[in-house]
Amino acid sequence: MNNLNRAANISLEEAAKFLLSKDRILILSHANPDGDTFGCSYGLCGALQKLGKSVKIACADPLPANFFHLKEAVREQDFEEETVVSVDIADKSLLGGLEKLYGDKVDLAIDHHLSHVPFARLRYVDDEAAACCEIVYDLIKLLGAEIDKNIAQCVYTGIATDTGCFKYANTTRLTHIKAGELMNYGFDCGELNYRLFDMKSRARIKLEQFMLAHLDFFAEGKGAIVALNKELLNNVDSEDINGISALPRMIEGVDVGIVLKEKEDCWKASMRSLKADVQKICKKFGGGGHLNAAGCSFKNMTAEEITEKIKAAVCRELGSETAEQ
Amino acid sequence: MNNLNRAANISLEEAAKFLLSKDRILILSHANPDGDTFGCSYGLCGALQKLGKSVKIACADPLPANFFHLKEAVREQDFEEETVVSVDIADKSLLGGLEKLYGDKVDLAIDHHLSHVPFARLRYVDDEAAACCEIVYDLIKLLGAEIDKNIAQCVYTGIATDTGCFKYANTTRLTHIKAGELMNYGFDCGELNYRLFDMKSRARIKLEQFMLAHLDFFAEGKGAIVALNKELLNNVDSEDINGISALPRMIEGVDVGIVLKEKEDCWKASMRSLKADVQKICKKFGGGGHLNAAGCSFKNMTAEEITEKIKAAVCRELGSETAEQ
Repeated sequence: MNNLNRAANISLEEAAKFLLSKDRILILSHANPDGDTFGCSYGLCGALQKLGKSVKIACADPLPANFFHLKEAVREQDFEEETVVSVDIADKSLLGGLEKLYGDKVDLAIDHHLSHVPFARLRYVDDEAAACCEIVYDLIKLLGAEIDKNIAQCVYTGIATDTGCFKYANTTRLTHIKAGELMNYGFDCGELNYRLFDMKSRARIKLEQFMLAHLDFFAEGKGAIVALNKELLNNVDSEDINGISALPRMIEGVDVGIVLKEKEDCWKASMRSLKADVQKICKKFGGGGHLNAAGCSFKNMTAEEITEKIKAAVCRELGSETAEQ
Repeated sequence: MNNLNRAANISLEEAAKFLLSKDRILILSHANPDGDTFGCSYGLCGALQKLGKSVKIACADPLPANFFHLKEAVREQDFEEETVVSVDIADKSLLGGLEKLYGDKVDLAIDHHLSHVPFARLRYVDDEAAACCEIVYDLIKLLGAEIDKNIAQCVYTGIATDTGCFKYANTTRLTHIKAGELMNYGFDCGELNYRLFDMKSRARIKLEQFMLAHLDFFAEGKGAIVALNKELLNNVDSEDINGISALPRMIEGVDVGIVLKEKEDCWKASMRSLKADVQKICKKFGGGGHLNAAGCSFKNMTAEEITEKIKAAVCRELGSETAEQ
């Protein structure tokens, strides 16, 4: 049980044995799904189906269009589940609309979050894996299931999306080794990555233009904040907003980038940093997250009021005076 | 001599033996340098210096600021060279301002271009390598030189930049395997990749804003073209223009993206495509390149005239009527 998170109570070999002994399996992905949680569920579903098992996937939210290629790995099957598996889910609340139904019924959780809060009976949690798909890849090998091009593409999708295509600091030697092995299965990584990372809709382009034109720099250029109201956000699909929170932080000199998004009854703030501890800042406002990526929300305040509050908190964290620049 | 280009006349083992038998080595990078040519020269220079040899680097253009980390791998040495090596140079004309001095004096060329035109006495050319740094990495291992964090960072820089951080179709199983091995040397890949790929100057942001606001879509949205005049380009550093040609092609539905840049006495067109053969289009205008990335230039014409000519040629290639959209 190398590298295992304290939430873990079984080895990956035991997880494989458990799955091999079961049938009629339901795999759950988390709400607000990303490439990793769906890469895991579709990849594992396809592999278990190849072993002759009945397997299906559920998620509180639909599969976004840029992940439609994942569907090629599985056959749709309808049955009453006897075994429930969760993938890439750190806490049962992240099941979203499915929490009531399945929150207390998960038999096996496969996860890679440091912050994993136990909810499943059996848990394999390796927080050194950059993507949960890294674990699922090892699991599929332990299951002895045949890996084909479509399954390889699922696993690759999770690994690539959770590491910003091998760009982020969570990328490890093993991440590359596994990606290299997956390349053997012959999917078109150039075309896939274009769809996952480079393709932008015209609506997205317009949104980025708005953001860049309205960025408010502060703390001697070390902070940048922009607010996106409902009217703006209603004009774009959810896929178009993907990754938009990282935009302000990409500008040279900016350590903390903040994007405010207006929701039905509140404003959500997404903070991204290079070095500053944005989790600490968001915690002050009742939010949370990681050192370099965190969020919080505000009710009954205008975007201007929130902006001022956040600027002051960021300046304090950066140890800088509020100097507009 | 597996996978070798027909321009090759030695094996990599022979290239290593040659270098081991020499001293006072000058390594040449190509003009308009990128991360791969400088990753090669700095990485190989550092490795040969570790073997006790006198080695220096020359290039017609200076090292861009986002590659300053490469300098950590080498010590500056001054001597008269006895051996000249070129890295990532497909044709001696690409030596730019150094062609006159060294064009006919290169002893060993290490390259990965399919189109390599022989100019060196000894040539190792493997066109299946995604980056020339993949070859240099194998070469350094054959030399038996110690690889440290700084040298690993040079080689990684070349591999990452030539593959769009492992995103493009040229990425192979070996690309990932080598990147995985390089991760062992403990450089901070997250920080490095931020500098190489994500960080944008405010001038770059302004340039992108201009481009997005002035994109001219045609051929039912399958083509997009924008012209950048001298005034605009004079306001940005050369690093800020890096990769800008890929921008129009990133928009959903666009197959051919074209950026026109005004030079002292002409306009240069850079074409990028997903599927269409832009080399064929550029060839018509006296240019060239690859299937999905090519260029050409125009003299004594206005940007408007060039735009119309290019639009017509792209429409013909796409088999589409010129329909503005």
